[in-house]
Amino acid sequence: MMSSVYVINPNSSEAVTAEIDAAVAPLRSSDGPQIICLSLAGGPPGIQSQRDVDGVIPPMLRKAEELEENAGAYVIACFSDPGLHALREQSRCRVFGIAECGVLTALTLGQRFGVIAILPTSVPRHLRYFGAMGVIDRFAADLPIGLGVTELSNEARTLSRMIEVGRALKADHGADVLVMGCAGMARFRASLEDAVGIPVVDPTQAAVTMAVGHVRLLQASVRHQS
Amino acid sequence: MMSSVYVINPNSSEAVTAEIDAAVAPLRSSDGPQIICLSLAGGPPGIQSQRDVDGVIPPMLRKAEELEENAGAYVIACFSDPGLHALREQSRCRVFGIAECGVLTALTLGQRFGVIAILPTSVPRHLRYFGAMGVIDRFAADLPIGLGVTELSNEARTLSRMIEVGRALKADHGADVLVMGCAGMARFRASLEDAVGIPVVDPTQAAVTMAVGHVRLLQASVRHQS
Amino acid sequence: MMSSVYVINPNSSEAVTAEIDAAVAPLRSSDGPQIICLSLAGGPPGIQSQRDVDGVIPPMLRKAEELEENAGAYVIACFSDPGLHALREQSRCRVFGIAECGVLTALTLGQRFGVIAILPTSVPRHLRYFGAMGVIDRFAADLPIGLGVTELSNEARTLSRMIEVGRALKADHGADVLVMGCAGMARFRASLEDAVGIPVVDPTQAAVTMAVGHVRLLQASVRHQS
Amino acid sequence: MMSSVYVINPNSSEAVTAEIDAAVAPLRSSDGPQIICLSLAGGPPGIQSQRDVDGVIPPMLRKAEELEENAGAYVIACFSDPGLHALREQSRCRVFGIAECGVLTALTLGQRFGVIAILPTSVPRHLRYFGAMGVIDRFAADLPIGLGVTELSNEARTLSRMIEVGRALKADHGADVLVMGCAGMARFRASLEDAVGIPVVDPTQAAVTMAVGHVRLLQASVRHQS
Amino acid sequence: MMSSVYVINPNSSEAVTAEIDAAVAPLRSSDGPQIICLSLAGGPPGIQSQRDVDGVIPPMLRKAEELEENAGAYVIACFSDPGLHALREQSRCRVFGIAECGVLTALTLGQRFGVIAILPTSVPRHLRYFGAMGVIDRFAADLPIGLGVTELSNEARTLSRMIEVGRALKADHGADVLVMGCAGMARFRASLEDAVGIPVVDPTQAAVTMAVGHVRLLQASVRHQS
Amino acid sequence: MMSSVYVINPNSSEAVTAEIDAAVAPLRSSDGPQIICLSLAGGPPGIQSQRDVDGVIPPMLRKAEELEENAGAYVIACFSDPGLHALREQSRCRVFGIAECGVLTALTLGQRFGVIAILPTSVPRHLRYFGAMGVIDRFAADLPIGLGVTELSNEARTLSRMIEVGRALKADHGADVLVMGCAGMARFRASLEDAVGIPVVDPTQAAVTMAVGHVRLLQASVRHQS
Repeated sequence: MMSSVYVINPNSSEAVTAEIDAAVAPLRSSDGPQIICLSLAGGPPGIQSQRDVDGVIPPMLRKAEELEENAGAYVIACFSDPGLHALREQSRCRVFGIAECGVLTALTLGQRFGVIAILPTSVPRHLRYFGAMGVIDRFAADLPIGLGVTELSNEARTLSRMIEVGRALKADHGADVLVMGCAGMARFRASLEDAVGIPVVDPTQAAVTMAVGHVRLLQASVRHQS
Repeated sequence: MMSSVYVINPNSSEAVTAEIDAAVAPLRSSDGPQIICLSLAGGPPGIQSQRDVDGVIPPMLRKAEELEENAGAYVIACFSDPGLHALREQSRCRVFGIAECGVLTALTLGQRFGVIAILPTSVPRHLRYFGAMGVIDRFAADLPIGLGVTELSNEARTLSRMIEVGRALKADHGADVLVMGCAGMARFRASLEDAVGIPVVDPTQAAVTMAVGHVRLLQASVRHQS
Repeated sequence: MMSSVYVINPNSSEAVTAEIDAAVAPLRSSDGPQIICLSLAGGPPGIQSQRDVDGVIPPMLRKAEELEENAGAYVIACFSDPGLHALREQSRCRVFGIAECGVLTALTLGQRFGVIAILPTSVPRHLRYFGAMGVIDRFAADLPIGLGVTELSNEARTLSRMIEVGRALKADHGADVLVMGCAGMARFRASLEDAVGIPVVDPTQAAVTMAVGHVRLLQASVRHQS
Repeated sequence: MMSSVYVINPNSSEAVTAEIDAAVAPLRSSDGPQIICLSLAGGPPGIQSQRDVDGVIPPMLRKAEELEENAGAYVIACFSDPGLHALREQSRCRVFGIAECGVLTALTLGQRFGVIAILPTSVPRHLRYFGAMGVIDRFAADLPIGLGVTELSNEARTLSRMIEVGRALKADHGADVLVMGCAGMARFRASLEDAVGIPVVDPTQAAVTMAVGHVRLLQASVRHQS
Repeated sequence: MMSSVYVINPNSSEAVTAEIDAAVAPLRSSDGPQIICLSLAGGPPGIQSQRDVDGVIPPMLRKAEELEENAGAYVIACFSDPGLHALREQSRCRVFGIAECGVLTALTLGQRFGVIAILPTSVPRHLRYFGAMGVIDRFAADLPIGLGVTELSNEARTLSRMIEVGRALKADHGADVLVMGCAGMARFRASLEDAVGIPVVDPTQAAVTMAVGHVRLLQASVRHQS
Repeated sequence: MMSSVYVINPNSSEAVTAEIDAAVAPLRSSDGPQIICLSLAGGPPGIQSQRDVDGVIPPMLRKAEELEENAGAYVIACFSDPGLHALREQSRCRVFGIAECGVLTALTLGQRFGVIAILPTSVPRHLRYFGAMGVIDRFAADLPIGLGVTELSNEARTLSRMIEVGRALKADHGADVLVMGCAGMARFRASLEDAVGIPVVDPTQAAVTMAVGHVRLLQASVRHQS
């Protein structure tokens, strides 16, 4: 049996996990790895601050430990990629972070990537991460939509702010590809792309794509050797 | 019916295309896009010089034009990514270059990537490309195995040179992940990885992984809208 | 007899070649190399797309081969520097690209260079090239005037758009030197410089300057050795 | 009364804390802030893995919360700067990380800094951090002494390995200043500097220097306003 | 007796030196190094042009030579850090430049630093310096207040222009920390910080902080060895 | 009459000036600008330290002031480009530094430039300058031949050390083009190029090439306007 791709939403919101599950559904195939999306029961309702990011790492590592036996790859489904390197250390499997994969995928679609963040306080954290990734020369800007949790539940308003920010990234900062700086927003991807007129990457889809490919190749290689 | 992923080997070597076909076989699934690998009849036997790289672009564009109707994505299977941007202009589909995808995938597996080139003359061309990609800060070194076409047919010697070069990239240049700087070498990947002790990326597998995921997501989105 | 500097306009427009010829006339001297400007009969009327850029390489290489005997240096007079590295491989002579030389010359005149492109679609191509050149830290912005071929024939309108774009590069992006991102525009250089108030580089003049110096030094060195 | 500088050693080793305390003693003055060094009782005996780094953040944040009332500044005394940004969010005080301050101080003493790490597994973590700091252009190399905890207790062997690595950083990688990539090693600083012949920075001293200055300036400004 | 920190204002303005003296007063302690601020009698009234910067180096080096016997460290109190490397060569002591230390300190307080210059002509000089420092990836922008010497004496107008420029650096260029690009302006620091809402660094305070720490550590190490 | 190109050797060595004069002779033409090479009587016998570099600026500026009337361009013929920006401020003419022009010209001849310095102490100064130029991504290494003034007079030994260093730059650091990091060494250029097998740039020839072209274009433009 093929190992599974575990997509860990490190917050406790089942609604976000359901969104993620829907977004990656097209990547499932009958003869491929299972793609299992789960929330972190012990996690915060949303991951907003650096404290939240750092705080979910220990419980996420414990959760991954439980999943290790059947795991073929992990995807950490939060745009701050919490615990990415700690889980890489802990597991024998490859681990994909959605920010890392989302940005790298964007680099195949445009010369300057823009990022749509939720909160202004996330922006410097993203910048540090893009610096660690060494991709600042390809970076246009990272702008927040600036909506709080309650406002985000207003779908029309959220999409409309995303479009505004996306247009600013294109017109004022020269972005020719966008990355949604958040998990669980894939339902807005196509509308945003249409409205702004440049490609938009849902980072969770980008990461799960890479994870699925990896597990398929790995299994084949194992079969071949045995 | 789902559109196909066309993997174009822009040289005329059917042997290389067969190798590529075998390498990407695990990425095929019954309910996913077809993955069709083909050689460029009008191409040179191998792509070694900048002249070769530039010269295959016009025939490759013509070939892609013929394939456009059923295409969901293209993969250009030569480590110089010839015609990547011209084909992106010409086609309504996404186009993936194996050098671009191979390097970006390597960035998820180590902090400094090393590249194993075939010929010394390819190295400055690769450096220009990594500069255009904006990833020089993550780059360890690019070293050639320095074997001519006839010598490459000696499999044991080729693998042994790859291992030597891979070890030098790790020990002397600090690489912690390697990219094979050539299409059609996937059969050496696992042995190389075992011998050097750091992950090794076959760039064609990396690109086809991303192409397959893209076509699956796109088709689902089209179905959803109709 | 001193070898010639061949300035190859890789499009077929004799008008552009005439403009180039006039622009480089002051670099001719009685005891220096001939400077011979020519169009590429087989080239497109203008080079606008990446397909155009890549497509002119094979005929340009053939043309250069015919010229090789009397060549001392080549200048490729298109701001995408098509075939620069392929011609460097093919010829025993040095080859100068106008984009490369224009940008490098600008680096001696200001700390942040801005580029005036013709079409918006050229901008990402330029960015990739500046990345390959490794000069992104000195780069202010690249903005298009956005005029089509017919509109370009309106000289007053073209200059006026160049001035607008030049002023935006200076005021909004911090450019303190400009490069004209096109061959055959030298007639606007002085007016543009006066209007914007920062130095403006005509890239063809920059490249021919370097080519002429090289041929003079080379010939002297040959004479000295014989 | 002047607020204190709290130097938090995020591991539980009292011996390391005592070393740190001795190293920063010269920065104490009768009329300046108290400098209080403490261990994290709940921390691991040493911080070696990424898991250790991430795992100490929650207890460290709780500890800092207890100290907040009298705090003027915090110093996080571990070369991975665990929780630096989370503590910056949480506290009204400035927070100094020893890796950040050690590297920045090194930039005033040489053009290319080398880092002496303890374990090879720390090197990619350091590289990511230097990337996030945006200082890769000034970075020579980061080499480990490769000694385990028991071997580190052999002082002569530790110093001798540090000197070897320091000499390699200078001779083979062009470093002209060194940073000790660890807290609690200041006792080796002067001998290492003498043996290698280039300046050596103890990162904890660098961070406490900046913290003390900050608290003095802040208090004066508060006095002035009241 | 502890060696002194000499803060050399390389212009001849006693008013500026008095301002500097007041700004660094909180860094003095009864048991620490003396901090002696002095003007350069032979210097220009203000340092505005590159010619001024270069021209003060020879007299500053002569002045430092006279001070060498009792010196523990030097601080060059002009934002162009004139003669920084020449004095490092000449003296056995460490030398701190206020631009270097101001910018490096800013890197501990925000992810993108903005600089408030006095004159527009200083901006390219600053940019060259930040390039030499290798910190361009952390740089937001450098904008001048554009006031001449007489206008600067109008305190309200100066502060008001600084606030305007600081706000533009934050809002339009993404700066989250500011550096005052001039010596002798510390009296505006707190008001500017309050008005703009992000940390503001007085570069002279930053440099003297590092110098004082260095002298304290050095003296302790000397005492220890003797 | 056409304005002159003044090549100022900022040291007092007439022998070096004579070497420079010979090196640029092929760039003279009957109908072009005069190229006048001169020593700085008040300069040091050689420019070795940062103090020397900074110290020659005031007398060099005075000298240039005397020459201004007939000047069309200046070339500063010392590889530290002393006073480059101060002279640009002072003069209405363009000013070319040999380090700047030498490195930029090298960028047209290879992907990674290596520099042959005379003394080890010059290396960090060069690195700062390449950083200010923003070309570190194209930089291979800068290695000194390490010969003192008396040893330099031994021509065979000097060339032999240059060849050793050039070979190390190519083999160990990946340089594919070299820049001679000194004025007055052009007589070794061809032999060095032959021995190492990659292009070698004499920086004074590079700078005078650009200066001559500039003056020719400028005069033509003036004639055209009048």
